[in-house]
Amino acid sequence: MRCRKCGEKAVINMRQHRLALCKEHFLEWLPEQTERFIRKYDMFSHTDRLLVAVSGGKDSLALWDVLWKLDYQADGLYVHLGIDQETGYSDRSEDYARKFALERNLKLLVVNVQEQFGESIPQIAARSRRGQGKVCSVCGLAKRHIFNQTAQAQGYSALLTAHNLDDEAAFLLSNTLDWSLPRLARGFAVLPAAPGFARKVKPFCRFYERETAAYAILREIAYVPDECPYAIGSKQLFFKEDLNRWEDEMPGTKLRFYLNYLAALDEGVFPERQEEDEVLSGKLCSRCGQPTTAGELCAFCRMFEE
Amino acid sequence: MRCRKCGEKAVINMRQHRLALCKEHFLEWLPEQTERFIRKYDMFSHTDRLLVAVSGGKDSLALWDVLWKLDYQADGLYVHLGIDQETGYSDRSEDYARKFALERNLKLLVVNVQEQFGESIPQIAARSRRGQGKVCSVCGLAKRHIFNQTAQAQGYSALLTAHNLDDEAAFLLSNTLDWSLPRLARGFAVLPAAPGFARKVKPFCRFYERETAAYAILREIAYVPDECPYAIGSKQLFFKEDLNRWEDEMPGTKLRFYLNYLAALDEGVFPERQEEDEVLSGKLCSRCGQPTTAGELCAFCRMFEE
Repeated sequence: MRCRKCGEKAVINMRQHRLALCKEHFLEWLPEQTERFIRKYDMFSHTDRLLVAVSGGKDSLALWDVLWKLDYQADGLYVHLGIDQETGYSDRSEDYARKFALERNLKLLVVNVQEQFGESIPQIAARSRRGQGKVCSVCGLAKRHIFNQTAQAQGYSALLTAHNLDDEAAFLLSNTLDWSLPRLARGFAVLPAAPGFARKVKPFCRFYERETAAYAILREIAYVPDECPYAIGSKQLFFKEDLNRWEDEMPGTKLRFYLNYLAALDEGVFPERQEEDEVLSGKLCSRCGQPTTAGELCAFCRMFEE
Repeated sequence: MRCRKCGEKAVINMRQHRLALCKEHFLEWLPEQTERFIRKYDMFSHTDRLLVAVSGGKDSLALWDVLWKLDYQADGLYVHLGIDQETGYSDRSEDYARKFALERNLKLLVVNVQEQFGESIPQIAARSRRGQGKVCSVCGLAKRHIFNQTAQAQGYSALLTAHNLDDEAAFLLSNTLDWSLPRLARGFAVLPAAPGFARKVKPFCRFYERETAAYAILREIAYVPDECPYAIGSKQLFFKEDLNRWEDEMPGTKLRFYLNYLAALDEGVFPERQEEDEVLSGKLCSRCGQPTTAGELCAFCRMFEE
């Protein structure tokens, strides 16, 4: 397999694009494409102050690296969740994020859940009434809350996450199997700011996971290599495997699934509906000041009352 | 596993309903549920003359059997497609359908494609411009055409097909992966009559395939046991396997996927759009008199001109 641009040995073959590239041209191609998506979806500009949610994994560090190469003003936000204290999963992840920032002279904000709120995510989950997969459910809620709060409190123009197409497609498949209309309404690559909610943007949403992984590896970015221990056996990973099996059988299936969904969204097939924990009552949480549902406290602050 | 109704040994456990039943009670349950669906979706009444599309397989013969037990006026329609003339797939299927009708003193109409139109389905497909899976594409078009024409010409109130939930869910999954909006708009259990189009009804749409198969076996219905040779390796079977794997892992997934989709349809998520080969131009085919797209001939009659 040869690079389409220079004829050298290719390092990656992207069957859905019928495009094979060598290391040099792939490392050019991925940032160029990112820039293209940023413009196409009108994500942000060079004058915006951006906040990247950084987990220490390949996707978020690759995204931060690309933004840095493309000269965007992007700070990082690492949320220490207190995961797997025996093997130090969260500690190690933080180290990778800090080292990455230091090497590039980038600013990394860190929120430590246990220090700031008195309990780690697994501790909150252990006494939560949420059902199966409750660590992931508590974790998702906490991250959404902290990301949003930080982005707003510190005046960032947009909050960026490094969700790739595999993430988006697995989430979409899962929501489609339930025909969860509020969630299906919110799959845009850009969610505009709303009162109390920061603008949310996914610049990597059109890359396959193997492409972001290849980028991180070829750029020699040091990242935490293991999956979060709680993600193992999750529905998300289960659906990713199915999507990859379909992709093997019918190249382009994942991409088509996601892009045709975005086109359906643009056609207004799924009108905006608020998620249960984001329904606006017009009230603000009496503890944190973020938007809240009908209650006095927002869903995040309520977790500490359960 | 014991029957929930009588405590005898169960022959089937329907995990999605948390319901295990013995032979006697399962053979009561399936027709009762069919009657329930007929009423719930306002499918037809005892005064309607019904036409059942009969393939000689387990689903269509089971449906015809249930309608007969429930005292509906249902004739059968077998379309001989000329499939696999070496092993006589279509001939054998016709024999099963004829024998079934004879034993119950039911009326079976037969349309032989080769006799009536001069060519079998594989022969038409062999010179067709349609792409991959063209036998199935030609076959689907031909069956839709012949079913519709017969139902209308002979004044039936509705055309019934024996699609089960596995069929509907696999079709839905396939259309969802493409976000094919015209097809997603047409997944109702009942498609009302429209000018030129017979009313179409799927009374078995809420049964899993293993339930209709169990019914056929326990009722000792003789049916053609093999899949159509052209279906082997089809996308449809591929997606059925995935759905069954999800079902094993998360019982009820298939049912939820289908029922929540029906609920979304009822909410008007997918407004009606015509399929390419069914777009109404207001014109009738100059050869067969059925509705046609922009052309002089309908899509079916055009196949003989290619």
